[in-house]
Amino acid sequence: MSDKDVTVIYGVLNERTEHEKRAALTPDIVSRLTKSGIQCLMESGAGLDAHFLDSDYEKAGARIASRDEIITIADVLAFISRPTSEVVSSLRAGTWIVGAMNSFTDEGYINILKTSGVTAVAMERLPRQLSSAQSMDEMTSQNSITGYKAVLKAADAYTSILPMMTTAAGTIRPAKVLVLGAGIAGLQAIGTAKRFGAVVTGYDVRPAAQSEVESLGAKFLDLNIDLGKDQGDGGYARELSDEEKVLQQAAVDQKASEFDIIITTAQVPGRKPPVLLTAKGIACLKRGAVVVDCAASEFGGNVEGSKPREVIRTDNGVTILGLPDLASDVSTTASQQISRNLADTVLHFMREKDGQIKLTVDFDDEIDKAMIVAYSQENVNENKE
Amino acid sequence: MSDKDVTVIYGVLNERTEHEKRAALTPDIVSRLTKSGIQCLMESGAGLDAHFLDSDYEKAGARIASRDEIITIADVLAFISRPTSEVVSSLRAGTWIVGAMNSFTDEGYINILKTSGVTAVAMERLPRQLSSAQSMDEMTSQNSITGYKAVLKAADAYTSILPMMTTAAGTIRPAKVLVLGAGIAGLQAIGTAKRFGAVVTGYDVRPAAQSEVESLGAKFLDLNIDLGKDQGDGGYARELSDEEKVLQQAAVDQKASEFDIIITTAQVPGRKPPVLLTAKGIACLKRGAVVVDCAASEFGGNVEGSKPREVIRTDNGVTILGLPDLASDVSTTASQQISRNLADTVLHFMREKDGQIKLTVDFDDEIDKAMIVAYSQENVNENKE
Repeated sequence: MSDKDVTVIYGVLNERTEHEKRAALTPDIVSRLTKSGIQCLMESGAGLDAHFLDSDYEKAGARIASRDEIITIADVLAFISRPTSEVVSSLRAGTWIVGAMNSFTDEGYINILKTSGVTAVAMERLPRQLSSAQSMDEMTSQNSITGYKAVLKAADAYTSILPMMTTAAGTIRPAKVLVLGAGIAGLQAIGTAKRFGAVVTGYDVRPAAQSEVESLGAKFLDLNIDLGKDQGDGGYARELSDEEKVLQQAAVDQKASEFDIIITTAQVPGRKPPVLLTAKGIACLKRGAVVVDCAASEFGGNVEGSKPREVIRTDNGVTILGLPDLASDVSTTASQQISRNLADTVLHFMREKDGQIKLTVDFDDEIDKAMIVAYSQENVNENKE
Repeated sequence: MSDKDVTVIYGVLNERTEHEKRAALTPDIVSRLTKSGIQCLMESGAGLDAHFLDSDYEKAGARIASRDEIITIADVLAFISRPTSEVVSSLRAGTWIVGAMNSFTDEGYINILKTSGVTAVAMERLPRQLSSAQSMDEMTSQNSITGYKAVLKAADAYTSILPMMTTAAGTIRPAKVLVLGAGIAGLQAIGTAKRFGAVVTGYDVRPAAQSEVESLGAKFLDLNIDLGKDQGDGGYARELSDEEKVLQQAAVDQKASEFDIIITTAQVPGRKPPVLLTAKGIACLKRGAVVVDCAASEFGGNVEGSKPREVIRTDNGVTILGLPDLASDVSTTASQQISRNLADTVLHFMREKDGQIKLTVDFDDEIDKAMIVAYSQENVNENKE
C-alpha cells in the first residue's frame, strides 16, 4: 500500500435492493475508521437510499471503487446481509467477511464459507450480554428502529388519532395499543406509542418482560393463565409447549379485541416466527383496528394471515400490515447505527501482532469464540506483503 | 310524519370520493340528534371509509334511505363539502343546506342557491371568535387533525428518527422541524412534533403567533427582519406588501436550510395559498430533508413546486409531499368532529316558534347574520303540514 499507515482495507459493496435501503458504512464511520489507519473502499451508489452520495464518502476519506476491485483487494468486507456464494468464491484466501451469516439455519452456506478460505464473523452470534459487545449489537440497534417505525406505520394506517385531544367538539379518547413481544423492538414500540399519546399495554411470554414493560409506564397484559417461568437462552423467548401455546393464543386472541392497534414483534432468530394472533383473534377485532406484524415473512409471521409487504383489509374492517423492512425504511439512522456496529466489530478483531495492527482471531476471547463461523489460517495481512 | 315528536328530518348523502373519506354524520351524533327529536336519514355507505357501517347508523337510530328520498324529504342536509347545483335544483323550496359553500370565492354558486329557494348555511363564515360558536367550528377541528397528520406523514417519509436516542452505538440527534404558518394546523403540528421528540421551530407573519408558538415550548423563527405588526381580519394572516414578501421569502428560504423537516400550513380561506418556501429555498435544503405542504392545491401551495397528492423527489434529495387531504385521511376522528360541528350548527338554528321547534333564521343573531348566504322565505317546517 502506498500509505504506510494503512494496515487494513475495509470494503463495502452496494447492497441496495427494492427492500434494502441501508448501507453498511456511513460517512461519519469512514472518518472514524480512517483515523484508525483503515482505508475504506465503497462501491458507487451504496449509500444513495440513505441519502449519502459518493462524494460524501470521498469527503470523509473513503475511495469509491468498482465492485470487482473491492472484492479483489479488501481485507475485510462488511455487510448488512451477507455475500453471495459467487462473491465468496471470488475473495482472496484469508479475506474477512462480517455480516448476518444466517448461521443458525443455513449450514450449507457456512460450509461454503469454511471451504472458501475466508474468515467469517457472524453478527447474529454476538454475545449480546457482554458489555464490551454493546456497540457491536446490530440486533439491538436495528430492532430498536423497527419498534419506532412500527408505531409510525400503525399510527398512519389508523383512521383516528393516537393521543387524547380535548376540543370544543368533544374529547377524543386516546388509542389503545397492544404490543405483543417485549424484546428490543417491542419495548421501543411501547415507548414510542406512549410518547405519541396512546394508552399502551405490552405482553411477552418471558415473565421478566413484565417489569420491563411496566418500567416504561405501560400495562402488562394479564392473561389470567400460567405460562411457565423459564426464560430461554440468551434472553429469547423459549418455545412453549403445545398445550401452553393453545392456552396463550386463546387468551391473547380474546384480549386483543379491546385494542385499536396491535403491534407484534416476536422474532426468534433462525426460527419461524411464533403466531401471536390467530385468524380467530383478528375476527374479533374492532372495525378500524390496525395490526402491524414486524415478523411477517414468507414463512408466516406473528399474525395469522399477514403477508410480507402487503396491506390486507379483512372483511371485518381490520387492516393488517406485514412490515419486515422497517429498519431499512429508516435508512439513514439505521445505516448510521449498523455502520457503527459493523465497524466496532471489525475493530474488535484488530489487534497488535508482531508490532503491527492486524485482523486476528483470539479463540480465548469470548466474542471471537462466539462469532467466528469460518476461519482461515491464511493471514490476510501478510498476504499483501 | 308518523312520529309526532320528530320536527326536523336531517339528511346526509354519501360524499365519499377517492380523496374524501369523511362522513358528515357519525353514529354517536345520530344518537344526540335523535334525542333532540330529529330524524336522521343516511345514504347507504356514507360512513364506510370512516369505519361506520349502515347497521351502526341504524343501531344509533338513523334510517338508511336512497339518495333521491333524502334529497326529496330532508328538511336540512349537512355536507362535508356542498351539494352540486343539480342536487340544489332537486331540493324542495325551503330546504336548508349546511356545508362548506365556498362563498368567499364562488359567487356564481351562491347566486344559484339564492334563486333556488333554499336556505344555505356557510360553515366557512362561522364567527369563530364567539365562544358560543366553538363547538360548530369545523375549521378548528379539521385543521387540528391536519396538523397532527402532517407530522405523521413527515416522520414516515423522513429516513431518520424524530426523537433523540442514545444507544451503545452512539447518540442520534433529534430531528429539527420547522412549521411555517402557526394557525390551528400549525400549532397542532408544533405540539405533535414536540410530542414525537423533535426540536421544533415555528413561524408566522402574525406577530401574535410568537407567543403562541413559544407557549408550546417551541422556538419562534427569528428572521431578523421587520414585517409589520398588523393582524388580519378574523385572526388570519394579512396580505404582506410585495416588498415585505420578497424580504420574508428570502429570509425563510435561507433559514430553512437548517431544518430536516418543514411543514407548511398557511391557508387563507378563499385565496391562493401564499408561497412560504420557494424553489431557491428547496435547493438549499439538506439531502434527505422532507417538506410537507398542507396547502398544496391545483392553484399552487405554500411550497414552490409542490403538487397536490404527489411525492416529488428533487435532484438535491429533498422529498416534497403535497398533502391537501390530511384531515380526510384521519377519517374516523375527522368525521366524528365535523359531524358534531355540523349538528351543533343545525341545532343552533332550531328555535321554538309557535310552540314548535323549527329551523328558523334570526337576523339579529350574530351567527345567523354571518353564516346565512341564501335565505328562503318558505318555511320548511310548515311546508310539510
